[in-house]
Amino acid sequence: MDKLHYEDFVEGSTHSFGPRTMTRDEIVAYAREFDSQPMHLDDEAAKDSLLGGLSASGWHTCCFMFRMLYDNLISKSASLGSPGIEETKWLRPVRPDIPLTLHVDILDKRASKSRPEMGLVRMRAQLRGTDGVPVVDQTSTLLIGVREPREAAAR
Amino acid sequence: MDKLHYEDFVEGSTHSFGPRTMTRDEIVAYAREFDSQPMHLDDEAAKDSLLGGLSASGWHTCCFMFRMLYDNLISKSASLGSPGIEETKWLRPVRPDIPLTLHVDILDKRASKSRPEMGLVRMRAQLRGTDGVPVVDQTSTLLIGVREPREAAAR
Repeated sequence: MDKLHYEDFVEGSTHSFGPRTMTRDEIVAYAREFDSQPMHLDDEAAKDSLLGGLSASGWHTCCFMFRMLYDNLISKSASLGSPGIEETKWLRPVRPDIPLTLHVDILDKRASKSRPEMGLVRMRAQLRGTDGVPVVDQTSTLLIGVREPREAAAR
Repeated sequence: MDKLHYEDFVEGSTHSFGPRTMTRDEIVAYAREFDSQPMHLDDEAAKDSLLGGLSASGWHTCCFMFRMLYDNLISKSASLGSPGIEETKWLRPVRPDIPLTLHVDILDKRASKSRPEMGLVRMRAQLRGTDGVPVVDQTSTLLIGVREPREAAAR
C-alpha cells in the first residue's frame, strides 16, 4: 500500500489512536535506565511527591506517546525525521494501567524551500486519560516526503 | 551533604558535565522499544536517510541527556519535578561512540506564587560533540525546593 505523503496530510484534520496503557514494570524499568527520581521508582517516595503516587517519568510519557504515533501514523507515512519539538507540557501524573488515547491535530503544513522532495507538517499531539483530559500536550514538526515534487511534476 | 536548593541556583551560571557516549547497542535497543524508524536500526537504511548513517532517535538523545542531567545535577538538588520542556531542537545526527558533553546555562529563576516552598529554575541544556557544536539544544524548567520558604523565614 502506498505510504501517506505530504499531500495526504490535511490541515485541520484530527486523528485518534489507542487506548494503550503503561504498566508498572515498564514505568520502573524506564526510570531505572533514564530517570531515577524516587517518585518514578518507589510507592512510598512517590506518595510524598508532587505527583501523589507512583507515576511515569515525563520523558517516558514522551517515548510512549511517540511509540503510539509511530505505530499508527509515522510508520505508514513517508517520514524523513523531525527537526524538533516546539513545546511539551506535562500536565498530570501518568499512573500505571490507565488507558491512554493519543489525539493528533494537524495544525499546518508547508513545502520545504531548500528541498522540494520534502514538506513540513506541524501537529499537536495529546495523550489523554479516560476522562478525556490531557496528561501530555505537545507541538512538533514532522518532515514528510512529497509524492510529486515540483521539479518532477514539471517534467 | 545538603542538597542544592532554589537559593543555590545562580542566574547566568554555566555548568559542564561528561563526556559520555551512546553505544550502537544502546541506540538500537532504544529504537526497537520506542522509535523503530529504519535509520535508527539499520546501517543500510540509515545511509539513504537524511541522517546519512546510523544515528540515535531524537527521543533517545533527550533521555540520554536527561540521564546525564540527573546524575550530575538533579540527583544533587531538592528537585520536585518539571512542568515541561519549552523547546527541543535536534540539530545534528548523534552517531555511536562519539564523546558528548552536557552544557547547562541557568537562564533565570523565580519563586512560585502558589507554593512558597518551591521555585522555578529555567535552563538551557545543550549536548555537544567533540567539536563543541551542539547536537541537541533544549530549554526547560525545573521545580526546585526552597531552603527557607518566606513563611518560615518570617517566623
